Amino acid sequence: MNEPVPVADRVDAAAAPVAAAPKKRVAIVGATGYSGAELTAIMARHHGVDLVALFSSSSTARGPVTPALPKLIAEPFTFEALIAARPEVVFLCTPNEVSAELAPKLLDAGMTVIDLSGAFRLEEPSMYPTWYGFEHENPKLLGEAVYGLTEYCNGELKKARLVANPGCYPTSILLALRPLNFAIDREQPVICDSKSGVSGAGKKADVNFSFAELFGNFKAYGVGNHRHEPEIRQQLHLGDRAPLVFVAHLLPVHRGILSTIHVGFTHAMSEQQITDAYARVYENAPFVRVLPAGQLPELKNVVNTPRAEIGFQLLQGGRRAVIVSVIDNLLKGAASQAVQNFNRMFDFAETEALI
Amino acid sequence: MNEPVPVADRVDAAAAPVAAAPKKRVAIVGATGYSGAELTAIMARHHGVDLVALFSSSSTARGPVTPALPKLIAEPFTFEALIAARPEVVFLCTPNEVSAELAPKLLDAGMTVIDLSGAFRLEEPSMYPTWYGFEHENPKLLGEAVYGLTEYCNGELKKARLVANPGCYPTSILLALRPLNFAIDREQPVICDSKSGVSGAGKKADVNFSFAELFGNFKAYGVGNHRHEPEIRQQLHLGDRAPLVFVAHLLPVHRGILSTIHVGFTHAMSEQQITDAYARVYENAPFVRVLPAGQLPELKNVVNTPRAEIGFQLLQGGRRAVIVSVIDNLLKGAASQAVQNFNRMFDFAETEALI
Amino acid sequence: MNEPVPVADRVDAAAAPVAAAPKKRVAIVGATGYSGAELTAIMARHHGVDLVALFSSSSTARGPVTPALPKLIAEPFTFEALIAARPEVVFLCTPNEVSAELAPKLLDAGMTVIDLSGAFRLEEPSMYPTWYGFEHENPKLLGEAVYGLTEYCNGELKKARLVANPGCYPTSILLALRPLNFAIDREQPVICDSKSGVSGAGKKADVNFSFAELFGNFKAYGVGNHRHEPEIRQQLHLGDRAPLVFVAHLLPVHRGILSTIHVGFTHAMSEQQITDAYARVYENAPFVRVLPAGQLPELKNVVNTPRAEIGFQLLQGGRRAVIVSVIDNLLKGAASQAVQNFNRMFDFAETEALI
Amino acid sequence: MNEPVPVADRVDAAAAPVAAAPKKRVAIVGATGYSGAELTAIMARHHGVDLVALFSSSSTARGPVTPALPKLIAEPFTFEALIAARPEVVFLCTPNEVSAELAPKLLDAGMTVIDLSGAFRLEEPSMYPTWYGFEHENPKLLGEAVYGLTEYCNGELKKARLVANPGCYPTSILLALRPLNFAIDREQPVICDSKSGVSGAGKKADVNFSFAELFGNFKAYGVGNHRHEPEIRQQLHLGDRAPLVFVAHLLPVHRGILSTIHVGFTHAMSEQQITDAYARVYENAPFVRVLPAGQLPELKNVVNTPRAEIGFQLLQGGRRAVIVSVIDNLLKGAASQAVQNFNRMFDFAETEALI
Repeated sequence: MNEPVPVADRVDAAAAPVAAAPKKRVAIVGATGYSGAELTAIMARHHGVDLVALFSSSSTARGPVTPALPKLIAEPFTFEALIAARPEVVFLCTPNEVSAELAPKLLDAGMTVIDLSGAFRLEEPSMYPTWYGFEHENPKLLGEAVYGLTEYCNGELKKARLVANPGCYPTSILLALRPLNFAIDREQPVICDSKSGVSGAGKKADVNFSFAELFGNFKAYGVGNHRHEPEIRQQLHLGDRAPLVFVAHLLPVHRGILSTIHVGFTHAMSEQQITDAYARVYENAPFVRVLPAGQLPELKNVVNTPRAEIGFQLLQGGRRAVIVSVIDNLLKGAASQAVQNFNRMFDFAETEALI
Repeated sequence: MNEPVPVADRVDAAAAPVAAAPKKRVAIVGATGYSGAELTAIMARHHGVDLVALFSSSSTARGPVTPALPKLIAEPFTFEALIAARPEVVFLCTPNEVSAELAPKLLDAGMTVIDLSGAFRLEEPSMYPTWYGFEHENPKLLGEAVYGLTEYCNGELKKARLVANPGCYPTSILLALRPLNFAIDREQPVICDSKSGVSGAGKKADVNFSFAELFGNFKAYGVGNHRHEPEIRQQLHLGDRAPLVFVAHLLPVHRGILSTIHVGFTHAMSEQQITDAYARVYENAPFVRVLPAGQLPELKNVVNTPRAEIGFQLLQGGRRAVIVSVIDNLLKGAASQAVQNFNRMFDFAETEALI
Repeated sequence: MNEPVPVADRVDAAAAPVAAAPKKRVAIVGATGYSGAELTAIMARHHGVDLVALFSSSSTARGPVTPALPKLIAEPFTFEALIAARPEVVFLCTPNEVSAELAPKLLDAGMTVIDLSGAFRLEEPSMYPTWYGFEHENPKLLGEAVYGLTEYCNGELKKARLVANPGCYPTSILLALRPLNFAIDREQPVICDSKSGVSGAGKKADVNFSFAELFGNFKAYGVGNHRHEPEIRQQLHLGDRAPLVFVAHLLPVHRGILSTIHVGFTHAMSEQQITDAYARVYENAPFVRVLPAGQLPELKNVVNTPRAEIGFQLLQGGRRAVIVSVIDNLLKGAASQAVQNFNRMFDFAETEALI
Repeated sequence: MNEPVPVADRVDAAAAPVAAAPKKRVAIVGATGYSGAELTAIMARHHGVDLVALFSSSSTARGPVTPALPKLIAEPFTFEALIAARPEVVFLCTPNEVSAELAPKLLDAGMTVIDLSGAFRLEEPSMYPTWYGFEHENPKLLGEAVYGLTEYCNGELKKARLVANPGCYPTSILLALRPLNFAIDREQPVICDSKSGVSGAGKKADVNFSFAELFGNFKAYGVGNHRHEPEIRQQLHLGDRAPLVFVAHLLPVHRGILSTIHVGFTHAMSEQQITDAYARVYENAPFVRVLPAGQLPELKNVVNTPRAEIGFQLLQGGRRAVIVSVIDNLLKGAASQAVQNFNRMFDFAETEALI
């Protein structure tokens, strides 16, 4: 694809004198997957962006990124077409192995890469064969990649060439737990019982993900061997020894993750202490909302929004808590967080294109 | 309430002594599909049956017909194994082409065949290439096969070697329309707007039938080219000229069909006339219930039951009607109707194993 | 509520120098219903609007219009608070009777009213007792109200004081049928078999609309007595005699309407003729998309979008057609169409705040 | 497959001659609720039962217990009508307070009572005001009532006048945990993260249980204050001190409970040890199935069946486990367990009417 995509669904250029600066040239690879289509829809209304190329990662035919966006057309991917579009920033919504192979080439070509796969999330190269099933060819990029849990990023995003956008489950859990890290008793298990809508598995032809099998159904999966577990552990700095238990479940809904998190504290905490701990981190975060003590969020509060909500209930005199967090797995768990990162990297308002 | 409840749905005491006669040796091929598993569950509680063999039609591994019936184990199919089990009656829950090939061999081996596919439903051989995509090798069996819309079968079932069990959409439509055939104006279109749960498409790995694509979705399909259309036309004896319109839709539920049928009458009909016309056919039918005029049935009335329900609303002074019929596509639209036919063929109570 | 709502979720004022003209002062009554919340979300990002007041129509407590928009707060409604907010334009997302009573008062106070209820949709006052159950107090407003099926409105919107926003079912049917009106055979029944998501019934405590009753269920309702039927008939100018049949169904999804429409033509039509007829009306319509002949749209194409999609399949040599149209009942069937009308009334781009 | 299928799910031939003994006269109060209708459907096919009376607990009109069972008619409840029907056994599917008031009267009249409410589940009278909101009038019946978790009942059921049928959540948790009680480390929290279909809340008009609010939604509720928590604690004999955490969630499905249970052991357990512990209790239990180590059951395995399934995954070298159990909340969690108890009380095969 040598020419700019005719991005007819985007906000009219006339609406957007915001960015006096020249617009960023952006390409998306994997625009036809569930996260990719969400990302495309957001970027098409970004006032500081020229969406110069949209690629499907798997399809061989030209077509809309999704039926609901008939004017946003993706092309079959070729590396040559990507280069020819001369993007400054490339979002990769591609399988792990594809991202691992593509990102270094794009960096070499001088582009900035925001990768939505897991290819650059783990710091330790030796974990890739175990958890992702492939040997990492570029171990030093693992050290360079910025883990883009936006609310925990500062100046490093501005200098980043490569952002590893967090996994959906880790986002839901880390936002809930990191502010309380100081108080968590590491001698007790931290139990993360997470439930995700089916879009988390991607678009695929698999009888186990067919409507007939999942309608009215519910199940746990990946106990003890889900690749998001080492990512959570790494970001919580719990160490190998600490008893983190992560159980993923498949909810019969299209989108959204709700994580129910069970923690013990080293000493009794008050509701005010918990509330304050969250406020210290999220007071000015436009997309994280902490509910008053004792109120727990529902999935629908955040579905189709870029926001996370967190609620908690103290138990046993404050020595334990049940924390519930909700996000839309395709937005805060993928596409909208990628845009938050993009906005911070290039000095746009963090909320640009997101509200 | 001072008197015993008239518990008409309970197992009839008269149905029990059946078992005195030697039991029928029965095999099921295709027991692991959605209809096959329902059929297996029913036949496993039939007092007059020895279930001598259960075969998957596609799998190469031994396993339960369905996770909810862990003790009913299907084997990979081989013709030799089927013969070795010496069944007297074989139910085929197999793809059309497989049934077309298998049934003649089983008949030659002296077995009785109840086929749940479309392989023997159309009377006219020349229609098979057009509607089913294959040339029928045994055109004379099309003449012999008994079309098993049970409520319209009489003595012919007792002599049948081969039963063509009706399609799910045709069952829902024919039960509603055939009693009114005498009054329908054939100069006006008969419009059948049918909606089916996803299990009607069978168990398959196809992204278009994935949960993520169908959740919250709804669509029409097969307009003008659905293979159930000639089956309906044939059984209504409308002729080629009469304007039958059949539109199938995919409902985001697991099971059940609701057909909304629009007909005009040659002269104004009263509610009593319609009610009487239905009563003439269904008065003693244990599995068809006609609601009082103006009441329309819901899908949930029949899901997981072997029953059909029919309701109607007269319009335009009785010159037109909207008729709504509901069935469970896997039961009255497939498995339980096959068992009704079996029961009639071998002189069991029609309700045996079904209530 | 005497002070402007702190509309924190809206697009930052800095983003919007678009409207050099002073912003329109807008209020919404009934902002906490399903349509009202959608409308509020859209208007909050409108660059030419000051959202000066948001009212719940039923609640007595202050709170978010919906959990997904926690910063958009609705107040309990009082007429005094509405007046005090000095809106220029008021959207009414209120029950029919409430709109019928409120609109005249607002017009008297010099405000412009866009009513999303059915209170001003029928031209003939005598139909209100029959179809809506109340006597209309302001029959002459029925003559004045502009029926806001946007694609069929021209200059009249610019002069309108009162807009009757169309019903959801009528929108889905009229967009599909009006371009073909010239060719429709009025001696044959026009059959509209429509299916709507549950949000169409509004937010209510009713066991018949409970999750437990509707999950996996499907039903027809309102045959021959749905209040949208006279609205469709009036807008199609079919006359009382023409045999229009409208059947509504309750789909087990949250949102979206799919109408399957069966019509006969006075003479055989070609695909090109149909395509051309649609193009004449919708060529420049930003929110109506007609698919190529033989392709039918799915609900998911339009859910959560302000767009309608229409597809058709010719039958019987072009003498009949099946037409399928889809909209989101809460958007093109309510809120976004109201905003299209607003945009046209006040010379904003028709797409402002909608893409 | 050369040999007859081992059809273990089929009706046991031995179960038929039951009917020789005089049938038990049985009444059901609350037959029109979700559990009541399931119970009625089961008892209507019980060979040893005369169903002498069916009562709605709330309705004032005569009508079917559920639309899917049109011939099973419930009457409005009066105590006089119940007495007049002369039942020997009465099932109460009534609200807690109604059961608490009704049961003593029925016992006084010489009847046997199987209560599906929570009115007699807690042994300690003082807990009723706290957890159920009413003062118990018959504290000594709490001592007499047999807690009917069938697999843990022995001779006591045969002598019972009053059975307290277990709660749905407790059933799913107790079946999974009681066999491992000996090994559980009571210094670590036992965490029960349970998810239930919406039918668990009963049939009610409440906007929070409306389809529009729950479709695509998911939430936790009752943290720290669910009345099933003291019931679980009591039956596990954990004592007040042990850190049991129970979190209920509302799944957007009609029926079924999946409990994800997190426990630590006092010492490392092997898969074989866990498997053996379960086998000791459930080897001959017809309705409890324990999966091989490392396999976890799905909801659909048990929905619409009277069975429970349990699976486990050891973690951290056997020092912890994740245990997943599934039941149908309306069957093993209510109606079918009540029938298991009835069958044991009156010497019927435990599986009578249930397979």
